[in-house]
Amino acid sequence: MSQVEIKAYGAKANDADLEQLAIQRREVLPNDVKIDILYCGVCHSDIHQVRNDWGNSKYPVVPGHEIIGRVVEAGDSVSKFKEGDLVGVGCMVDSCQECDSCKEGLEQYCENGMVGTYNGKDEHLGGHTFGGYSESVVVREEFVLKVPENIDAKGAAPLLCAGITTWSPLRHWKVKEGDKVGVIGLGGLGHMGVKFAAALGAKVVMITTSPDKSEDAKKLGAHEVLISKDKEQMKAHAASFDFLLNTVPVKHDLNPYLNLLKRDATMVLVGAIEPLEEMHGGLLIGKRRTVAGSVIGGIPETQEMLDFCGEHNIVSDIEMIDMQNINKAFERVTKSDVKYRFVIDMKSLKN
Amino acid sequence: MSQVEIKAYGAKANDADLEQLAIQRREVLPNDVKIDILYCGVCHSDIHQVRNDWGNSKYPVVPGHEIIGRVVEAGDSVSKFKEGDLVGVGCMVDSCQECDSCKEGLEQYCENGMVGTYNGKDEHLGGHTFGGYSESVVVREEFVLKVPENIDAKGAAPLLCAGITTWSPLRHWKVKEGDKVGVIGLGGLGHMGVKFAAALGAKVVMITTSPDKSEDAKKLGAHEVLISKDKEQMKAHAASFDFLLNTVPVKHDLNPYLNLLKRDATMVLVGAIEPLEEMHGGLLIGKRRTVAGSVIGGIPETQEMLDFCGEHNIVSDIEMIDMQNINKAFERVTKSDVKYRFVIDMKSLKN
Repeated sequence: MSQVEIKAYGAKANDADLEQLAIQRREVLPNDVKIDILYCGVCHSDIHQVRNDWGNSKYPVVPGHEIIGRVVEAGDSVSKFKEGDLVGVGCMVDSCQECDSCKEGLEQYCENGMVGTYNGKDEHLGGHTFGGYSESVVVREEFVLKVPENIDAKGAAPLLCAGITTWSPLRHWKVKEGDKVGVIGLGGLGHMGVKFAAALGAKVVMITTSPDKSEDAKKLGAHEVLISKDKEQMKAHAASFDFLLNTVPVKHDLNPYLNLLKRDATMVLVGAIEPLEEMHGGLLIGKRRTVAGSVIGGIPETQEMLDFCGEHNIVSDIEMIDMQNINKAFERVTKSDVKYRFVIDMKSLKN
Repeated sequence: MSQVEIKAYGAKANDADLEQLAIQRREVLPNDVKIDILYCGVCHSDIHQVRNDWGNSKYPVVPGHEIIGRVVEAGDSVSKFKEGDLVGVGCMVDSCQECDSCKEGLEQYCENGMVGTYNGKDEHLGGHTFGGYSESVVVREEFVLKVPENIDAKGAAPLLCAGITTWSPLRHWKVKEGDKVGVIGLGGLGHMGVKFAAALGAKVVMITTSPDKSEDAKKLGAHEVLISKDKEQMKAHAASFDFLLNTVPVKHDLNPYLNLLKRDATMVLVGAIEPLEEMHGGLLIGKRRTVAGSVIGGIPETQEMLDFCGEHNIVSDIEMIDMQNINKAFERVTKSDVKYRFVIDMKSLKN
């Protein structure tokens, strides 16, 4: 397998500071698409991986799984893409394509393990995969998404992770017009949850600990704001929600939120990949409520989401940065000081 | 409202000792059925209520919500029952009949609150309702169930609570032939869960901490036994279950069980009405698993279960006792020293 050396940004050792690196990309195989990266979103996972918070990082880490770019080369067998197409790559670049999950278009649950866009196992070059904080990327066509030309390409980058992570559960649990949907937490994920739930015709309630987020939540499409620290407000909304999308990314108490669900309604966790505080069994049993989890989304539903965004002109609210300011951006993400996603302008990598 | 004085067994004050009492029953209203009680099962809830473990007991407490008897009088408007019919009464004797839950036949989730068979609010005589540890009971016909004459009436008593509590989730989550179903915990609920899941055609795995329960579990219909303390066994069954029925009645760690569920599979709690140990969000998120709760069952599904028991000749495994031995039985239930349910022969009340 031939290799091509390209510029990227990443961490060489187990520390939080990213710097310019040279990395290898494979040459284009018959089934591959080569993409020049225009923009890449900054996901909180990028920081966790750079800092080895989950204990499974491989260095050098080149983060980035919210990639938008243009096709510059398509392999001989590629049928869906041609040079010049605006495309996206999300959290996965490969999967077995043979297990039940893959066959159902749920590659994120591949029973043989999907290959992460970075820090995944690179079957071609050996070692591990490198992400989107780089000039270009080579990906098999099954994991490349078409991005509608009518939406802002910069704001489209976070759709590939924050977008699909909230879209997938809203669709899987069949949120529909008129449903009362609560989105818990207003960050990168939450702001997309509000936009999508509103666009699907739901009555959207932003549930947040911070009264100062009310105005923003309403601008994003929330019809109402519920301050979760206010016991009276929480009581007034008890047993009234058809669906709750819980985007809180840290350990927290589920019980006050469970009490908001109607009989047979579901709260889906998309943020907290860690132990949660003690959940009260009676809150589930008394109204046949359910708590579920969901991770990103499969390729077909990611394409469905992008098409929906094209039809409804939906993108993420973003703040653009140059590659050279990535370490400062990481610090601000850690403090939740961003509305609502940083996106790197990859032109700056050429400076 | 006229009243009739009858004999019962109950606790007069906040203690665990039951003794003979005289209680009031209403005379038969047009919509009522009067039942002479033949047998009444002993549910763990009876003990909790007698001992005021949940802090909401009203004294005197006359427990008993697994009632089997014969109709001795039917009100003028009663259409479904006549004198001599073998009938049952479970955990509820009334509900609003007007809310969505009631209209859907899910009276246990009545939005105005169902009336418990004991310690519920008595709309007719005032005060609170008295349960089945008594000579007779008067119940509106909507809450009376037909019991098939071909099954053992003694063993049918626990169907009204332990039975329906396990039947309802198995049906609601559509357990079907060939599904791999785990029943966690082998007590009053668990042994019915095994029988029902096996009769529905599932491949049933009894999941227990006690290797010495293996033989019994297999006699009840389990095809396999999984010892939850054995990490190797648990690993071998990882991500393989279509459904888990969790009957553990106390605080416990859900995580080892969650790891047994396939993608998109559900564990339903029917026992633990209390805070549970810290659940790991990642175990839900990684395979889109769900945890739910379920309480008893509605009247239509209770009738469906009794009819199914008639067709498949299913009853509970029981140990018969006289009313006078109830305090000893309570002690043994507390130590899980019963296979699998005590049933009181109500003839003994006449001694």
